[in-house]
Amino acid sequence: MYDLLKGLRVVEGSAFVAAPTCGLYLAQFGAEVIRFDNIGGGPDFRRWPLADNGSSLYWEGLNKGKKSIAIDLTRPAGREVAQRLAAAPGDDAGLFVTNFPVDGFLSYEVLKALRPDLVCVRVMGWADGSQGMDYTINSALGLPLMTGPADDPRPVNHVLAAWDLLTGAYCAFGLVSALLARTRTGQGREIRAPLSDIGAATMANLGFTAETLMTGRQRQRMGNDIFGAFGRDFATRDGRTLMLLAITPKQWSKALEALGLTSEVAALEAELGVTFATDEGLRFTHRARLYPLFERAFAQRTAAELAPAFDAGGVTWGAYQPLEAALEDPRLYKDNPVFEDVSHPSGLNYPAPGAMATIPQDRRGQVKPAPRLGQHTDEVLAEVLGMSAAEIGRLHDAGLVAGGDGR
Amino acid sequence: MYDLLKGLRVVEGSAFVAAPTCGLYLAQFGAEVIRFDNIGGGPDFRRWPLADNGSSLYWEGLNKGKKSIAIDLTRPAGREVAQRLAAAPGDDAGLFVTNFPVDGFLSYEVLKALRPDLVCVRVMGWADGSQGMDYTINSALGLPLMTGPADDPRPVNHVLAAWDLLTGAYCAFGLVSALLARTRTGQGREIRAPLSDIGAATMANLGFTAETLMTGRQRQRMGNDIFGAFGRDFATRDGRTLMLLAITPKQWSKALEALGLTSEVAALEAELGVTFATDEGLRFTHRARLYPLFERAFAQRTAAELAPAFDAGGVTWGAYQPLEAALEDPRLYKDNPVFEDVSHPSGLNYPAPGAMATIPQDRRGQVKPAPRLGQHTDEVLAEVLGMSAAEIGRLHDAGLVAGGDGR
Repeated sequence: MYDLLKGLRVVEGSAFVAAPTCGLYLAQFGAEVIRFDNIGGGPDFRRWPLADNGSSLYWEGLNKGKKSIAIDLTRPAGREVAQRLAAAPGDDAGLFVTNFPVDGFLSYEVLKALRPDLVCVRVMGWADGSQGMDYTINSALGLPLMTGPADDPRPVNHVLAAWDLLTGAYCAFGLVSALLARTRTGQGREIRAPLSDIGAATMANLGFTAETLMTGRQRQRMGNDIFGAFGRDFATRDGRTLMLLAITPKQWSKALEALGLTSEVAALEAELGVTFATDEGLRFTHRARLYPLFERAFAQRTAAELAPAFDAGGVTWGAYQPLEAALEDPRLYKDNPVFEDVSHPSGLNYPAPGAMATIPQDRRGQVKPAPRLGQHTDEVLAEVLGMSAAEIGRLHDAGLVAGGDGR
Repeated sequence: MYDLLKGLRVVEGSAFVAAPTCGLYLAQFGAEVIRFDNIGGGPDFRRWPLADNGSSLYWEGLNKGKKSIAIDLTRPAGREVAQRLAAAPGDDAGLFVTNFPVDGFLSYEVLKALRPDLVCVRVMGWADGSQGMDYTINSALGLPLMTGPADDPRPVNHVLAAWDLLTGAYCAFGLVSALLARTRTGQGREIRAPLSDIGAATMANLGFTAETLMTGRQRQRMGNDIFGAFGRDFATRDGRTLMLLAITPKQWSKALEALGLTSEVAALEAELGVTFATDEGLRFTHRARLYPLFERAFAQRTAAELAPAFDAGGVTWGAYQPLEAALEDPRLYKDNPVFEDVSHPSGLNYPAPGAMATIPQDRRGQVKPAPRLGQHTDEVLAEVLGMSAAEIGRLHDAGLVAGGDGR
């Protein structure tokens, strides 16, 4: 945790990945992030993977460092509490992150009546408000038909919900940008971030759509070949698989040196009348001629021989490894200062990350676990809404809120 | 383009995807973003896909709305110009986005000497400074071994550079957060965002690492099955493939209704002694029993029958389609107000997106094309560094800068 956003009070009414990661990033930069959920948990409270006691490891990963208040969101009086929280008073409050529907009880119009300068960031599925989630929108963008081995026509979904993740980070950017604008002009805003627009725009930002408009069809499926440059997975003598990448001239020359291919490739260049060094596109065009040279060079060496040679030679490469091996990798997990041992609400102790970026000038504060559901109910009602103990008691008695013990 | 960040002056010294998308998002929210490149272009200036005239559609997609200055970055006097730009004066300047090495001529220490309150956001490969790009770090995180059909053990890389994209948006968030902190405390910062940490942390945020620590091994490969819920691709009678997803109780009941499976699934529930409606995990556990029912229901209907029934019933679904079909899809491209016809530096005209989010209260400004390389060289030297025409002339004469015509 860092202190960049210390003093900000953000309220999150969310579920799944995009909106919760937005809140997570804000919390890890020092904002106070208060997530409200229905009593008993929202639709993501029991999402897999689960610990043996039924706690969601997914939920506790995405809500680290937040406060939790549990409210009966099915009744008007509970909804009113949520509305008042979203529009919380204070110069550095009135900041709301949500994926609740555009038109419901947490619409911008409703909340704006409570706080005219509200900043609201809203994750949506389709821009028209219809149901869409990462995987159903991704299928419509063509990527699953471009993914996977070229000899297999079946669509391949990504496992990592990339659109959700991009949307979450973009929403955090949107929220702070809108706050910055509000501090200068006094004006609040709703920022709507539909997965469908973020997907469609990104495919355009990366050149996919221009290419398809030019050629009339989407990029062909090509397995792990890196489009327009040189890169692919290769098998070593001992049956390991390594990813090799060469986009820049330096990456290319270093790969050739480390694999002892400099003269063989020069001979191929002479035969073809091309120079691969300064034109990554030519490496792609002639990859069918280049691959056999690389396949042979990898097949003659073990991964244990290649790894130090690649590192010493400054080659851009990576070993394919399962996550259990990554967890033993000192650069990723084992000795990574981003991670810290934490006691989680599941009762399990395991390393968890703080802010994903590192600020060398600042001290990394402690990594905080996710709250238990409703853990901060009374504290939030008192501090944010200024309720008295008697008022809070009445909400409990009416079953409109619940504390960390579920009551 | 929106005006949220109007008045900010950001300098970008970048290449590839992560840092340029950071600058793109800032520009589309109204910041002035000045990208400097080596004369003749950086390592990404000719990245595929290319237009017929050799222009990069990728480069012009990622640099929309920015200004461009071309500098000879190989010589000390050119490097000094880049350093002075990164540390540009002004309350809303001194904001630098880069993927240049931590220790080079654009290190934070060097730039801090020019401007003590500099905000610098730095994209890195590995956190230790060694070479790493999206695809070589992704291979080390286990995802390619979890991706693709369960009956094929070959690793499958993602086609979308998800780590680059997440890093770019997270850096935009980091930059505005650090600016907010600077406006309050006067303190500048370097924010380092290594792809390796962003990947490692995200796998933890989503519960992948906790799951692997608990079970001893990473999640098994399962094709397009959605882990822990119900979702997969299904084939229709006319050979189309549709993605169906049901995480929430509502998504599940609506899918059953639209496919006419309510009573068959009730019979299966009775047989197994479970209730699928309120526990998506049970749907996953018993998916081998559920799939045949769904496969049959899809195989009895055409896509043209299912699409309106799914939409009318509020089902969460998507059709697998190639990008050329997506371009005709009114919700994604055809009638999407995020897109506008633009004349690009390649000489081509095609629709390009502005900001990925929509602010209903604000007017969407025009989508601006990418600059020609060096198009704003003289303007930037005069306005940002306050150089006289004579000084600028001397830089041109010495070949230290170049304009839009390459001179």
